[in-house]
Amino acid sequence: MITLLTDFGTTDYFVPAVKGVILTLQPNAQLIDLTHDIPAQDIHHAAFTLGACYRNFPPGTIHLAVVDPGVGSTRRPIVVQAGRHFFVGPDNGLFSFVYAREPHVRVYHATRAEFHRPQPSATFHGRDIFAPLAAWLVRGIHPASFGPVITDYIRFAIPQPQADAQTKIITGEVIHMTARI
Amino acid sequence: MITLLTDFGTTDYFVPAVKGVILTLQPNAQLIDLTHDIPAQDIHHAAFTLGACYRNFPPGTIHLAVVDPGVGSTRRPIVVQAGRHFFVGPDNGLFSFVYAREPHVRVYHATRAEFHRPQPSATFHGRDIFAPLAAWLVRGIHPASFGPVITDYIRFAIPQPQADAQTKIITGEVIHMTARI
Amino acid sequence: MITLLTDFGTTDYFVPAVKGVILTLQPNAQLIDLTHDIPAQDIHHAAFTLGACYRNFPPGTIHLAVVDPGVGSTRRPIVVQAGRHFFVGPDNGLFSFVYAREPHVRVYHATRAEFHRPQPSATFHGRDIFAPLAAWLVRGIHPASFGPVITDYIRFAIPQPQADAQTKIITGEVIHMTARI
Repeated sequence: MITLLTDFGTTDYFVPAVKGVILTLQPNAQLIDLTHDIPAQDIHHAAFTLGACYRNFPPGTIHLAVVDPGVGSTRRPIVVQAGRHFFVGPDNGLFSFVYAREPHVRVYHATRAEFHRPQPSATFHGRDIFAPLAAWLVRGIHPASFGPVITDYIRFAIPQPQADAQTKIITGEVIHMTARI
Repeated sequence: MITLLTDFGTTDYFVPAVKGVILTLQPNAQLIDLTHDIPAQDIHHAAFTLGACYRNFPPGTIHLAVVDPGVGSTRRPIVVQAGRHFFVGPDNGLFSFVYAREPHVRVYHATRAEFHRPQPSATFHGRDIFAPLAAWLVRGIHPASFGPVITDYIRFAIPQPQADAQTKIITGEVIHMTARI
Repeated sequence: MITLLTDFGTTDYFVPAVKGVILTLQPNAQLIDLTHDIPAQDIHHAAFTLGACYRNFPPGTIHLAVVDPGVGSTRRPIVVQAGRHFFVGPDNGLFSFVYAREPHVRVYHATRAEFHRPQPSATFHGRDIFAPLAAWLVRGIHPASFGPVITDYIRFAIPQPQADAQTKIITGEVIHMTARI
């Protein structure tokens, strides 16, 4: 089972290209859309959305998340094993809520090109790097095969509400607004 | 096979949370989106849309529909057996077209908490009550297990066109407008 | 595996009706949405989008495409075998990129009514003609069973960029704009 979360929208060929690549490598993969309507390049929105629902999926689920302002730059492609869930995507903070919640996290830098598509484009790593990684993972390849463990992966701080016992005031930060209430 | 119809939109974590809960209980459930773009809380729009396509699905299909202005109030969660189709959702008229078309309808008030998620939230019965009911149904639990049969379920009248033989005028009411013609 | 591309939008009962008809004929068909947000009746947009991703899908995939300004007129329903891919839809140029790329193309005019739904509506051939054709195809019916081969199928020219060696100017035509970059 592979979930997909992107900022690609649903009007163009981007999402189906990703799905086609996965299904070519693993025709009976079960694909579940989380959402493709993340505001463009909004990593925080994506991280919250993923964090809010990944635990509803069964153990072993692979979560493919591509919100990737740094595509084509030196940001690293990573595969994350966190508790009983797997995550594939760019190393840009997208999995910060996962890192915060899961006690056991291991992050692999997916350097080995034999698990990417040949001659990946500079602008569509969702199709050419992340989709094949997710497909190999669902086929049973261990994440350690993709490249070395890293510990300096990017995570942003998740603001916590503070309660002041004397003034009885709770101070927090809005971290997400839903489109519909 | 479970179809899903909601007013949750596709930009947030609501739909995937529902899907994740179903797939955790029944990993090989086949999930088909009817639509998640019902105008917010528009029960009539939802009822028409469901009524217009549920019969295209094979016998035995479970239709999960959540347009639920009364979530958290006393409105009842119901499971409906109508002909060879099943329906799960709030008792607010959402299945009025089904009731009007199917000669054999039985409606169960899904009171038994062991078929809900533990400690359901007050605002997200789609995930915490209706999704597990649909999953148990697809796993083969008989609707009678969920709670007692009721006969005072809510249905709204479906306006019928009237033809006047003398004036030769047909009078009707617009009951639905499609977004695209 | 059947992919779906339409201009039906996702707010109404049109897409689920198509899916339901397919799943009634072939309950374990694997349905993949390409997009349903093609601008209304924009055949060129649809043709480009399909052309940009059909090759990412595995051999044997059936691509059901319905952008159909001529529904109800005399335009022909066709089934196309192109390389190792199949296509079902109206004969209005929708498969022009496929015709341009695949060396081996065979186009069948799907005249035989026993592979349509009985009494097809004049306005919803997606549900009544194209969906059942795709389902029969996935069930293993050979395209030649649907009707005769035709060679005068409609295709539009795909503009190619021209490079002028003397002026060193490349001249081309914008053929597609993505919603998100």
